[in-house]
Amino acid sequence: MRQYRVAVVGATGAVGTKIVELLEDSPLQVSELRLLASKRSVGQRRAFRGQEIEVREAVPEQFEGVDIAFFSAGGSVSKVLVPEAVKRGAVVIDNTSAFRMEEEVPLVVPEVNMADTYQHKGIIANPNCSTIQMVTALKPLYDRYGIEKIIVSTYQAVSGAGQQAINELHEQSAQVLKGEVVEPRVLPVKSLARHHQIAFNAIPQIDVFQDNGFTMEEMKMVRETQKIFHAPDLAVTATCVRVPVFNGHSESVYVELGADFTIEEVRQLLSQASGVVVVDEPENQAYPMAVMASGRKEVFVGRIRKDLYHPRGLNLWIVSDNLLKGAAWNAVQIAEQLFANHRSS
Amino acid sequence: MRQYRVAVVGATGAVGTKIVELLEDSPLQVSELRLLASKRSVGQRRAFRGQEIEVREAVPEQFEGVDIAFFSAGGSVSKVLVPEAVKRGAVVIDNTSAFRMEEEVPLVVPEVNMADTYQHKGIIANPNCSTIQMVTALKPLYDRYGIEKIIVSTYQAVSGAGQQAINELHEQSAQVLKGEVVEPRVLPVKSLARHHQIAFNAIPQIDVFQDNGFTMEEMKMVRETQKIFHAPDLAVTATCVRVPVFNGHSESVYVELGADFTIEEVRQLLSQASGVVVVDEPENQAYPMAVMASGRKEVFVGRIRKDLYHPRGLNLWIVSDNLLKGAAWNAVQIAEQLFANHRSS
Repeated sequence: MRQYRVAVVGATGAVGTKIVELLEDSPLQVSELRLLASKRSVGQRRAFRGQEIEVREAVPEQFEGVDIAFFSAGGSVSKVLVPEAVKRGAVVIDNTSAFRMEEEVPLVVPEVNMADTYQHKGIIANPNCSTIQMVTALKPLYDRYGIEKIIVSTYQAVSGAGQQAINELHEQSAQVLKGEVVEPRVLPVKSLARHHQIAFNAIPQIDVFQDNGFTMEEMKMVRETQKIFHAPDLAVTATCVRVPVFNGHSESVYVELGADFTIEEVRQLLSQASGVVVVDEPENQAYPMAVMASGRKEVFVGRIRKDLYHPRGLNLWIVSDNLLKGAAWNAVQIAEQLFANHRSS
Repeated sequence: MRQYRVAVVGATGAVGTKIVELLEDSPLQVSELRLLASKRSVGQRRAFRGQEIEVREAVPEQFEGVDIAFFSAGGSVSKVLVPEAVKRGAVVIDNTSAFRMEEEVPLVVPEVNMADTYQHKGIIANPNCSTIQMVTALKPLYDRYGIEKIIVSTYQAVSGAGQQAINELHEQSAQVLKGEVVEPRVLPVKSLARHHQIAFNAIPQIDVFQDNGFTMEEMKMVRETQKIFHAPDLAVTATCVRVPVFNGHSESVYVELGADFTIEEVRQLLSQASGVVVVDEPENQAYPMAVMASGRKEVFVGRIRKDLYHPRGLNLWIVSDNLLKGAAWNAVQIAEQLFANHRSS
């Protein structure tokens, strides 16, 4: 059985930590795991399959002999080091936005467009978290009816902005509860000039603004959805909002399908879809929520209802763990489907 | 100058407290203020214009001699006591949903349809908080371009569910931060069988479910918007979500206008609109947020941007204090415009 040498870049971050946890139980045959990070984290240790592995600095030489490299250390790190890894023969699964829109780079959600993966030239891009959960839920509807228009508003957790944002929500919340003054330092975008309170607030900015008035996060949902569905003209409008939730993104999605449908059909299609779990019992107040999706690999769909004024309009509430299906799990899933002898469920 | 005897029913609740505060500084000539509530609150005292007023039990006899009665003690109280107040000659401004959809009851947002008020037969209904802020912001666009379709997703604060929900968010948040187990008791709907965690979560249910899969809160946004705009066929789709915010509702609103527009025109129309403040400078990361709108009377609009795929599609982010413009201020504003000699701004 083929054994693989695997590297995780950004191994100590919010997503990297999850990748290592998922590899622990993966059917992938891992002969060696290299944990790479910035200088700051060098020397930290992580348990993996009974061993203690020391974190090393992410430098080009560390990719010698590596077969599979997961990148999750930010776009600027990927831009520099992904080519170094590919040059040394690794297949890279990149969780950043660095290469997602490059034509020769497949942008993959296994349940949606696994076939694209096999066209890779060394780099496979993992889509943005908010895109992944939406296209996973919409895929069966896209195949069956076509989709003419998507209007999505997101309720995104702070874990998508990394460990510092998680810490900030924790500290700020405690301060507000004690009546103390808060001093935002991380959200919405650490590197920008202004920071806003996230505790007990909703911030309608994720990532930087573009000239068209949309944020980069919103444009990712547009462009990535079009690329994944191979539908460059698909009408997508997104409003991306950070809410004071630790983990688990929620999305209010309105779609106009390309053909007539019934709610029963839609519910059945979604129930049978790979990676999707329908939680939709209004009579029992059952619907997906961030706190129940957190820690799970699936995409949860509920609040399934027909628009009252458009015969092909459909409303969905889509929730998933943004660190798992939205990042680490989608990446490991790609690797497993490419390289594992036994697929995990 | 005419003096008015005023009653506030539900005077100790989240909205009632705000009504009393607003009356304190109102140009309305108040010769007597009666604070009414359930038996539980009888004997509590509230300061008003230098006096101490004792809370009395809300019973029919208390409306003798009352000119203006504000109701904010729940639909079931309004159903019983509003007719008693009207019978005794009071003009009622009812903040509950009890009479909103009755044909002879005007449903009023002063900036939108003040003219309807004058048709009242004793009862004037205050719309639902989530509706008020949306129609206030959309009114200038409706007048100028017409509106063909509204798709709204809300981010609603717990204060909309009353003081118990505010307390629940406070206590639950502290428990989660300490790693303790939480026991939801109030949200999403106190009287229903199941309760869900609101701290660090998003609950896609406000009010009870209808047979069509929409919640009552969502249907309020549909029906009330149609009634206020006198547009019974206006296509409105709403998804109403409770988020862990103490006060201030946010709304992601997509509208298809009836005529072509430019963003500059829209921004100018909104800037000049009564009761609306535009906060929209992406370059300075300036946009409305719940924590800045809380405590203010206006409706704040930002993230104004044109849809990329529909020439008449427009996106807005609308934020307002749901206890003020969404409830108490809108009610007091109606009374002032009907009865005050000097209008407040």
